[in-house]
Amino acid sequence: MSKLLLDQEKCLRNIEKMAGKAKRNSLSFRPHCKTHQSKEIASWFRDFDISALTVSSFPMARYFAEDGWKDILVAFPFQPGEMESLISISEKCKLSILVDSPAALPFLHHIPRQIGYYIDIDTGYGRTGVKTENPDLIEQIIVKASANSKLKFRGFYCHAGHSYKAGSRKDTDDIHGKALGDMESLKMQFAQYSPRLLYGDTPNCSIQEEFGKIDEITPGNFVFYDLVQCSLGACSQEEIAVAMECPVAGRYPIGERIVIHGGAVHFSKESLLLDGAAVFGQLVKRSEQGWTFGPEERYLTSISQEHGVMEQCGDLIREVNIGDKLLFLPVHSCLTANLMRKYQTLEGNRISTLNS
Amino acid sequence: MSKLLLDQEKCLRNIEKMAGKAKRNSLSFRPHCKTHQSKEIASWFRDFDISALTVSSFPMARYFAEDGWKDILVAFPFQPGEMESLISISEKCKLSILVDSPAALPFLHHIPRQIGYYIDIDTGYGRTGVKTENPDLIEQIIVKASANSKLKFRGFYCHAGHSYKAGSRKDTDDIHGKALGDMESLKMQFAQYSPRLLYGDTPNCSIQEEFGKIDEITPGNFVFYDLVQCSLGACSQEEIAVAMECPVAGRYPIGERIVIHGGAVHFSKESLLLDGAAVFGQLVKRSEQGWTFGPEERYLTSISQEHGVMEQCGDLIREVNIGDKLLFLPVHSCLTANLMRKYQTLEGNRISTLNS
Repeated sequence: MSKLLLDQEKCLRNIEKMAGKAKRNSLSFRPHCKTHQSKEIASWFRDFDISALTVSSFPMARYFAEDGWKDILVAFPFQPGEMESLISISEKCKLSILVDSPAALPFLHHIPRQIGYYIDIDTGYGRTGVKTENPDLIEQIIVKASANSKLKFRGFYCHAGHSYKAGSRKDTDDIHGKALGDMESLKMQFAQYSPRLLYGDTPNCSIQEEFGKIDEITPGNFVFYDLVQCSLGACSQEEIAVAMECPVAGRYPIGERIVIHGGAVHFSKESLLLDGAAVFGQLVKRSEQGWTFGPEERYLTSISQEHGVMEQCGDLIREVNIGDKLLFLPVHSCLTANLMRKYQTLEGNRISTLNS
Repeated sequence: MSKLLLDQEKCLRNIEKMAGKAKRNSLSFRPHCKTHQSKEIASWFRDFDISALTVSSFPMARYFAEDGWKDILVAFPFQPGEMESLISISEKCKLSILVDSPAALPFLHHIPRQIGYYIDIDTGYGRTGVKTENPDLIEQIIVKASANSKLKFRGFYCHAGHSYKAGSRKDTDDIHGKALGDMESLKMQFAQYSPRLLYGDTPNCSIQEEFGKIDEITPGNFVFYDLVQCSLGACSQEEIAVAMECPVAGRYPIGERIVIHGGAVHFSKESLLLDGAAVFGQLVKRSEQGWTFGPEERYLTSISQEHGVMEQCGDLIREVNIGDKLLFLPVHSCLTANLMRKYQTLEGNRISTLNS
């Protein structure tokens, strides 16, 4: 069986580093939990005075609320199918949601107690959110929502996820600069409502040092990082805190191919383009301290439901046997963790998640 | 919440059609369960006199063995990490495994009761299996295994998965023709061991009508089909038996964009290239009978962890509201079903799986 190994020390260092950056910049820190989805890992944040979380779904909000977290933002545009969850979770904690259209407000007419809302802002990502060029729509939302005394406007939320498509440091800086400028401008335009500014993709929160008028950061992936973050310059490969342990299922001299039991239902189908070729995981070497990096870089070059394939393995094919366990850094740790549904620390402890 | 809808009638028709083809060709039929992973759906095969299953992992073998299935093949090369499962599951049913190297045999020395094995054959896919051009290796496996009285050689297994990369009907026919020829040749070369020939990817089993000397087919995906199978000509779009139901989370006039709550943790990250662009699901229209196909084809054009995005939706953007439920055919139903972990039939019944 393949396992998702967690280097707890690396994970704690990643948390400490991001918490330190928030503190230095006088930013509140509301970590996103969609990557780890684990009560135990969320609890590690308490040592850094973290008391508020971000999540991406209502089941995740319920899971953390039931664990005693008292301030949770569901950072996904609210839709009425979640009304029952919203009501029951709001009994347990201070709950906030995202809104990006006046059309979402009528569904919230009969909420029994106060819910906070942030307006989702699109500074160029082009997924959800109100375009910053459209302050009239923001005004409409705030005015319409103000008719509902239970609905409290808290501020603006921006996930500048186009940072994941940045081709260079200059691109990243431009994306960050525009987002900060747009958010600052909104803070001034809507100063009468005292909006808080929430901001937070992992690449920008990891790479940047200046956060302008932002009040609170909400990155998530940094807790583990992965090959995508590494390729963006958001982390070093040594900071990646999770690795898949997969048994060798076959060795084939033709093509110097090794096949592991670790496929799309373990890693996910997320790939990363390296020199024009898709890779699905990077081989690392097990060591006493966890894992180390060899002189040569080797990758999973294809993946099907249960199989992972490494081609052109050279000498490695003569060093491994069927059943040997190989370790791989994942391309996208959020999706791998979601599929694996639990972790095993290097000390052998099992850590459960929402989906365990 | 997004849901995976199952059109039970279509699913039953797919099963009936494949069972009928097997019968017409005097083939045994050992359906692969990795797509549905469900006891209830497996039970539907019993009406077609099916008594043997194929699975892709030992947890799946255990799940079906505990439901009373008495003949199960784990169609993934055996590796010693599964020894404990192998022993305990072999108490419950006639268990067979795949072997493609003499190096796997020593691990099986001390099995307490009989286990069957098939030799995995590679007719050109290039993933696992012994190359047909290497009969000496096959002989080595059979001779070495024969020293273990508990290990019974049953035959040859071929998953000609390169059928998924076929660019034309001629490619598919060539792949199928070579596989049948190779398998027939092995049956003659190793006639003294009376090997059974197992064969079975969904594209070939769906498209082809002649199966030469094959004894048994083992397709799996045909139970639901999906957009990939449709693109290969293995099914019509009307035969796809599952659809994701996802609520609309946002509508954005710029780009005529609709965003749904349905992302990589629901659909998977599997994409299909259509006219050079990746798509992640095809929009269908809910109807009284299930779903129908509109005059225009619309697709999910990008996907992130929880979000699915359709761009250039034209008039549709004016027809839908936040919270409306849209239906999408999945690109790869195996991965979508694995993530969703349960089904809801059109009649509203819940069907559980191994991972529910």
